[in-house]
Amino acid sequence: MNRFQERKVDSLRDVSLEWDFQPGADASLLIRMGGTHVLCGISVEEKVPPFLKDTGKGWITAEYGMLPCATDSRYRREIGGRSGRTYEIQRLIGRSLRMMVDLTSIGERTLRVDCDVLNADGGTRTASITGAALALRHVLQRLVEKGQLAEMPELLPVAAISVGIIDGVACLDLDYSEDSRADVDANFVMSGDGRWVEIQSTAEGQPFSSEDFLAMTTLAEKGIKELFELWEQSSNLPEEQ
Amino acid sequence: MNRFQERKVDSLRDVSLEWDFQPGADASLLIRMGGTHVLCGISVEEKVPPFLKDTGKGWITAEYGMLPCATDSRYRREIGGRSGRTYEIQRLIGRSLRMMVDLTSIGERTLRVDCDVLNADGGTRTASITGAALALRHVLQRLVEKGQLAEMPELLPVAAISVGIIDGVACLDLDYSEDSRADVDANFVMSGDGRWVEIQSTAEGQPFSSEDFLAMTTLAEKGIKELFELWEQSSNLPEEQ
Amino acid sequence: MNRFQERKVDSLRDVSLEWDFQPGADASLLIRMGGTHVLCGISVEEKVPPFLKDTGKGWITAEYGMLPCATDSRYRREIGGRSGRTYEIQRLIGRSLRMMVDLTSIGERTLRVDCDVLNADGGTRTASITGAALALRHVLQRLVEKGQLAEMPELLPVAAISVGIIDGVACLDLDYSEDSRADVDANFVMSGDGRWVEIQSTAEGQPFSSEDFLAMTTLAEKGIKELFELWEQSSNLPEEQ
Amino acid sequence: MNRFQERKVDSLRDVSLEWDFQPGADASLLIRMGGTHVLCGISVEEKVPPFLKDTGKGWITAEYGMLPCATDSRYRREIGGRSGRTYEIQRLIGRSLRMMVDLTSIGERTLRVDCDVLNADGGTRTASITGAALALRHVLQRLVEKGQLAEMPELLPVAAISVGIIDGVACLDLDYSEDSRADVDANFVMSGDGRWVEIQSTAEGQPFSSEDFLAMTTLAEKGIKELFELWEQSSNLPEEQ
Amino acid sequence: MNRFQERKVDSLRDVSLEWDFQPGADASLLIRMGGTHVLCGISVEEKVPPFLKDTGKGWITAEYGMLPCATDSRYRREIGGRSGRTYEIQRLIGRSLRMMVDLTSIGERTLRVDCDVLNADGGTRTASITGAALALRHVLQRLVEKGQLAEMPELLPVAAISVGIIDGVACLDLDYSEDSRADVDANFVMSGDGRWVEIQSTAEGQPFSSEDFLAMTTLAEKGIKELFELWEQSSNLPEEQ
Amino acid sequence: MNRFQERKVDSLRDVSLEWDFQPGADASLLIRMGGTHVLCGISVEEKVPPFLKDTGKGWITAEYGMLPCATDSRYRREIGGRSGRTYEIQRLIGRSLRMMVDLTSIGERTLRVDCDVLNADGGTRTASITGAALALRHVLQRLVEKGQLAEMPELLPVAAISVGIIDGVACLDLDYSEDSRADVDANFVMSGDGRWVEIQSTAEGQPFSSEDFLAMTTLAEKGIKELFELWEQSSNLPEEQ
Repeated sequence: MNRFQERKVDSLRDVSLEWDFQPGADASLLIRMGGTHVLCGISVEEKVPPFLKDTGKGWITAEYGMLPCATDSRYRREIGGRSGRTYEIQRLIGRSLRMMVDLTSIGERTLRVDCDVLNADGGTRTASITGAALALRHVLQRLVEKGQLAEMPELLPVAAISVGIIDGVACLDLDYSEDSRADVDANFVMSGDGRWVEIQSTAEGQPFSSEDFLAMTTLAEKGIKELFELWEQSSNLPEEQ
Repeated sequence: MNRFQERKVDSLRDVSLEWDFQPGADASLLIRMGGTHVLCGISVEEKVPPFLKDTGKGWITAEYGMLPCATDSRYRREIGGRSGRTYEIQRLIGRSLRMMVDLTSIGERTLRVDCDVLNADGGTRTASITGAALALRHVLQRLVEKGQLAEMPELLPVAAISVGIIDGVACLDLDYSEDSRADVDANFVMSGDGRWVEIQSTAEGQPFSSEDFLAMTTLAEKGIKELFELWEQSSNLPEEQ
Repeated sequence: MNRFQERKVDSLRDVSLEWDFQPGADASLLIRMGGTHVLCGISVEEKVPPFLKDTGKGWITAEYGMLPCATDSRYRREIGGRSGRTYEIQRLIGRSLRMMVDLTSIGERTLRVDCDVLNADGGTRTASITGAALALRHVLQRLVEKGQLAEMPELLPVAAISVGIIDGVACLDLDYSEDSRADVDANFVMSGDGRWVEIQSTAEGQPFSSEDFLAMTTLAEKGIKELFELWEQSSNLPEEQ
Repeated sequence: MNRFQERKVDSLRDVSLEWDFQPGADASLLIRMGGTHVLCGISVEEKVPPFLKDTGKGWITAEYGMLPCATDSRYRREIGGRSGRTYEIQRLIGRSLRMMVDLTSIGERTLRVDCDVLNADGGTRTASITGAALALRHVLQRLVEKGQLAEMPELLPVAAISVGIIDGVACLDLDYSEDSRADVDANFVMSGDGRWVEIQSTAEGQPFSSEDFLAMTTLAEKGIKELFELWEQSSNLPEEQ
Repeated sequence: MNRFQERKVDSLRDVSLEWDFQPGADASLLIRMGGTHVLCGISVEEKVPPFLKDTGKGWITAEYGMLPCATDSRYRREIGGRSGRTYEIQRLIGRSLRMMVDLTSIGERTLRVDCDVLNADGGTRTASITGAALALRHVLQRLVEKGQLAEMPELLPVAAISVGIIDGVACLDLDYSEDSRADVDANFVMSGDGRWVEIQSTAEGQPFSSEDFLAMTTLAEKGIKELFELWEQSSNLPEEQ
Repeated sequence: MNRFQERKVDSLRDVSLEWDFQPGADASLLIRMGGTHVLCGISVEEKVPPFLKDTGKGWITAEYGMLPCATDSRYRREIGGRSGRTYEIQRLIGRSLRMMVDLTSIGERTLRVDCDVLNADGGTRTASITGAALALRHVLQRLVEKGQLAEMPELLPVAAISVGIIDGVACLDLDYSEDSRADVDANFVMSGDGRWVEIQSTAEGQPFSSEDFLAMTTLAEKGIKELFELWEQSSNLPEEQ
């Protein structure tokens, strides 16, 4: 069974959101994109890292983890230090989220975003960004509700998707089995106004032509625009209990 | 609002099981006891640690983790090494599970049990044991289904519960707020035939009398016997897809 | 040669104390229980951990170590981090000692207790507690002598012993060879007024019945009461030189 | 003084190569691009990582380091573990080099590439790739000379360059002061046949439009094509002494 | 009170040996030189490090530790890694002991020497060498007794002492208070035939003249020759029980 | 080819200095002694370690590293912690440099000296000291030029050399192949007024006689005095650009 039978090359997998999955977090969201499920939790800390002290600016930082049974073969717990892949992913998530908001508008506080993959089936880093961005809006709404922020900061929504070239064809939102046999693996992060926040495109088996790259860009744009509908659908979220 | 209004001193919190929460695991179970939610995943590895090589015995080992947003204040990810508390808990879980089955009956393989706390509201170690024991039965059933085990090994069910003394009264199954103000904090692990697998009782504010200890033991026995109903209810589990 | 020939099932091994084995320590005691020799040293630090700052409370903390040649097979030096067993033991020692005294009565200072096993023949954690508790009294006496404490704080003596079930018989104060073949391994910490500070009982080969547990409790109580004689014998200790 | 006075927006900095800077290496090259100086050394190891054993394939891996005095403010030696940035860079270098050659053509051996920045003035990762690719050709030539490889493997040259948007203008080959004030920071790796090996483009201050991205791509292509002249110039390298 | 009142400048402190302090070790010795007490334990391992496999040679290696209460101010346990000082000392001890015996004469086994300072009052590294050398002879005698070695290997005894310059005067065997105010701090290791195994002389406050150095050398030679009397006195050691 | 053909036993290898190899450092020097090339960079930090705070004293500290391709077999990057050898060397460098100057004369600042071996052919630690001492003078001259120091502190020059005994003959300034077969390996650090800063002499194959040691001392003195000519030659260094 291949991609063309199951899903069109330009189709996203089913997406669903479960809010407040972790009641102890300041905001939390379980995002599911097909078989990839990422729990995005945010904690608000009323202080900033030393380099921002007394600047009036806040900070947004992200950590990424994967539960040991999230994949078919057990993923070794990162107790002795993070892997290079983990560092790469959490730096990407953090950068993308910091692009969403003027850091002076959130006050001198740190928003700690934790993205933990409960189940992994491809595209965990892009699902993390898409979910974390939604959770970030929610945590800011709650800071306003509680009076810790005077008004809702202006937000630039962001969302992300993976694209790849399989057997010469550009495909949107790869699952794990597709990702394993793709010749090019690309991740795109876009803002709500259609500009790019991050583009990463890596040759796996073969270098890729400018035409391949253009085809991937077009698909990514289509996919991310569909993801922004999640922003509309979830504009009214429950207040904290 | 106190214990006596919400729940009787000898009542368990509501328990529910969600099977196969992690399709990538060889078996997995999300156990919820009140606000404490623990994801128990098991991976089967077809080899044993060096000290068991060529002995015909298998091995069961456990790891315990907590997601950063599982509690009200963010729990720091254990990247630089496990804490003493984590070591203590995963050693307890491993010992309890190894008491369930003759290790020669599972063949020379390792069952790796991962207990990850998604939400923490007291009693995470005992919920981990209760859930992991159920998942252990399930993974063995699946090994039988797939023909990797010739027959279902004889199992001694185990389950666990916490008990404490609050304001002089023994209370069953403490939640976090109760645990914080208890004078004694005890954890009991029992086997299905009513014998003890582990007893740990720690004075927090004051040493405790033999009478206090007896009262806790009685409550624990009552609670664990109720938990064994979960074994009945879940005796017919779905086959792996 | 078995237990019944050498020593009665309810007998302690010979205990002896050698005070001020480490003249550089603020107090130190070498406790010998049979072949188990533990050096307990205490250092007084005139500050407390951050969470106790300006609370008027002091702190008592313990570390546990084992010299490489303390056992028959060389014990690997814990240079790359403590083992789970070490964490468990030093947490137990620390908790037990903190139960001895109202922490406000020792002033805002930290008593650091180091228990180092020079020779190991079973029961190292309980010997550590028994020895460290005596050394703790001594260090407080010296703080009074030096005028750093206005008066001797009220002390609740504690002592500890191990008990096990061997071939169906409860035995007091197991040595290493006994410990290795015990079906149940239990450690009890009791206060001078006959209440319990900590009870830990672990099935090794088989779960244990409530009757077994009761028998162990009775033996433990007898043994610990004998250990409290050490408190009488050593009530007049030498002043610091 | 700004970019337009010193150097055109589409100009590379001066590039020079110093071969065999480390006589102990199997091949080594000091590449200088303006004030950025990277020492690229290669060691040949006659074995492969476990996952490639008995596959007939070789392996190419890279490590990246920076000397403490390479920048204006001292760069802390990475003794306690690599930073996320270091991981990211050495993964990028390794991936790019592995795209150059069919790994079966180099035999079951590992080529370890070390890129150490002696002086850093922007573009250290792209200079590392450009230099390491040249050194890789050299080490293969030497393996042929020594008879360890029967014939020179077919090579796909690669080279890399950074591009950025400063004050709305796309600029080629940023130095450190330019990089610090760029709104977009992009790195491009291209193969000798004009296809892409890696594209990474990151918004720093603002998301970027598709037009900006196209302008950067065009500049990168121009710059990398000039760098490929280094391949022509250094096709006759000295034999090993 | 100064050196000249207590002890002559060319006098050793009192030395005493307590054999078999650790019955679990293959050999052990508690050496006391004044207030410096070092426990030297040896474990025999019937294998060698990889670089000596199948060479017919054995190996001797040393580790050095200090108990937390060995000094006036608590010495931090080296759990997170050894300090530079510890590395330096254990490398010195290991080198010195390996000079004592032809490694082919001890068979393909490793002698692990553990030197743990119970009390520190200056000269811990030299006392470690002197004690460990004696214990090394003992462990070899026991290997002969047990038939694991066919005959006693030929041994070159070694011993070590510290010397310093205080107020312009060379002094033998410094205690801690002397060491702290010495201008030069030197350690000498000598073999039984009067040759040097190691000379280390370090200026602390001031560089030292060749005359100063000669005076220290002369004192060291005198002191070490006295220490070799310990070899005579302990030539008949108890057999292992 | 042996020593006597290539170079006299009392000859130094060719020495050359390349100043300001790292323009980002506060001072930097690439010293070459034959095939040993060490890059010495210094960074000035306007603060001191806690133990020197408010004492009016400055601090000088050194780190030592080796690039992976500096030797024939690749040297593993010290990412997981320094080796014992590295600790030993950087402690030696630091001690030697601190002997050069009264620390009160440099003000409350830290001079961080980094010695990185680009190519290793014996004597890396002594070349590091000789080079770092020269760089230290330079950095102080620059602090005077910039007005950060009121006047040039009085300096005691230091330089260092290795000596060994090969086939019974004392040889100056060993290269790697000589060092590997030497029976004694010694390092000497001397001050400009002919006094000793550090003497380290280690038996490799055989203990050494006092005569051997005297011969090495004489050679070392001759060699170091020649190295001090570098101080004359480089007394007029370029100002910082």
